[in-house]
Amino acid sequence: VSQYIAVDIGGTHLRAAGFHAGDLHPVRIARKPTQAPTIDPNPQPPFERLIDLIASIWPADEPVTVISVAAPGPVNPFTGVLMKATNIPGWVDMPLQQKLEKHFGVPVLLGNDANLAALGEWKFGAGRGTMHMVYLTISTGIGSGVIVDGCMLVGARGLAAEIGHITVVPDGEVCNCGYRGHLEAYASGTAIARWVEMEIANGKPSSLAGGKPISAKAVSNAALAGDPLSIAALERAGKYMGHALADILHIFNPSALVIGGGVSQSGPLLFEPMRKALQERVFNPHYLDDLVLLPAAFGDDAGLIGAFALGAHQFPPAA
Amino acid sequence: VSQYIAVDIGGTHLRAAGFHAGDLHPVRIARKPTQAPTIDPNPQPPFERLIDLIASIWPADEPVTVISVAAPGPVNPFTGVLMKATNIPGWVDMPLQQKLEKHFGVPVLLGNDANLAALGEWKFGAGRGTMHMVYLTISTGIGSGVIVDGCMLVGARGLAAEIGHITVVPDGEVCNCGYRGHLEAYASGTAIARWVEMEIANGKPSSLAGGKPISAKAVSNAALAGDPLSIAALERAGKYMGHALADILHIFNPSALVIGGGVSQSGPLLFEPMRKALQERVFNPHYLDDLVLLPAAFGDDAGLIGAFALGAHQFPPAA
Repeated sequence: VSQYIAVDIGGTHLRAAGFHAGDLHPVRIARKPTQAPTIDPNPQPPFERLIDLIASIWPADEPVTVISVAAPGPVNPFTGVLMKATNIPGWVDMPLQQKLEKHFGVPVLLGNDANLAALGEWKFGAGRGTMHMVYLTISTGIGSGVIVDGCMLVGARGLAAEIGHITVVPDGEVCNCGYRGHLEAYASGTAIARWVEMEIANGKPSSLAGGKPISAKAVSNAALAGDPLSIAALERAGKYMGHALADILHIFNPSALVIGGGVSQSGPLLFEPMRKALQERVFNPHYLDDLVLLPAAFGDDAGLIGAFALGAHQFPPAA
Repeated sequence: VSQYIAVDIGGTHLRAAGFHAGDLHPVRIARKPTQAPTIDPNPQPPFERLIDLIASIWPADEPVTVISVAAPGPVNPFTGVLMKATNIPGWVDMPLQQKLEKHFGVPVLLGNDANLAALGEWKFGAGRGTMHMVYLTISTGIGSGVIVDGCMLVGARGLAAEIGHITVVPDGEVCNCGYRGHLEAYASGTAIARWVEMEIANGKPSSLAGGKPISAKAVSNAALAGDPLSIAALERAGKYMGHALADILHIFNPSALVIGGGVSQSGPLLFEPMRKALQERVFNPHYLDDLVLLPAAFGDDAGLIGAFALGAHQFPPAA
């Protein structure tokens, strides 16, 4: 039996795993920090660290069908070039596919991590059985992926499905990307924490006051414990999510919305305002008729399982 | 040789044409008003008028492969039900596919007219050779269609690709659909004319003052003749088009934008502000690298040719 090697290039950690077709339990799995420790006298660059990690799980007695890689940034899946990696300085227009193919001598596939997480949820997770699925992962930023008619949406250059960067407030708050008014600037963990800090600085009472810096996780916990400012913060984020998702329903008419990422753990305090805003904004009730809202099945493994899904999809096992 | 019958159900006119595969010149074509004249003592309902029109072009000596129909409203292409027809009272949840198949005994396909116009532009017109294309038609409303990876985007129920109803100004002006702040409420012909009327009512000078009601065509002509208020009206519409299209590029990363409809005849006075707004808003310049902006190839024939494209696509001629 042949193995599929899946790789997730995270901003902090690299992970690699070997899978057998149809089995989500990896044969072998390994991880290491993306960057060498700063005290290392001979720091290995990230690409060499990646090569070593993949080699460390390479099967001794089975062939490898494909290496598929989830990359943290925009990827052109047609050329195999990673345009820019979040948190890895120097990885700009990096021909990752070509370099890995040359080194390992097997086919290599490359995808954006959120796009692949969507594919993984569709093929193995919460979105199984749907044909039109929208996936969002809400953490520091907002990543997304879309399945249209059973295919992963990538666009002409692999830059499609950037739902975190659609505008919800024209000329509004500054987004992590530097532009203004994007969903990510209103509903990401970063945005939620920043809004609470700002309101506290403006004198609003909160159980979080005085404890700067505030995390989205702390806001979520405080909200669950009844802190009114934290509840208002999740309400605000949920409302903007609903506004963006109304546009997304008008554009894709999906039958499933799958939502993951740390911030989605806040539950109804986030999702009820989202649902309400969505219902108010959708211009035809049929959009909601068959729509299901589902929590993502995979947490930190989303990128790795998504990469496996890509490999298995493009190189299905022989019947 | 077999014929493809294409039908366009317009708010004012019904049109039907018989085509041979690969030839955009119809063998026979006919049209009639959608509604019987009000002086008609025995007015025929629209469905009977449609049946008669199709029968009038039915080939005497050639078989018919398929009848494909462009419908003015949301259509579920899987069930063949027209949910609601613009301007045809009583056509709500109309099982048009089933009724036509029963009457004519050949396969019938149904699509939304703007979605099919997009398919026609992609298969036969301005978008030939692209794989990712976004089509907008700007007239009284804003219709749209999207080609993703060479397939027409329809979504789970046929309600996808409603770009005219994405929000550009939260809680902004009222749209033709009754909801607020949609692109159609800012950049359609109706919206352009309404804004000029409002500004004139507020005392702004214009060569159009005093000539109420004002049409988008009149605004376009006045703008071309140098009327500053009319120029400002097209600038405003173009700016909002650019804002919406930035979201659309982030979502679809298309390689072609095809724009048709009467309002698009205004040319650079509309498109230059649009281009400028688009460039300012797109958060990664790669989105614009391969993007071409093209005028639609088909005018009033867009729906009919789109219906033909659907038939030819689903029932390709035997090789």
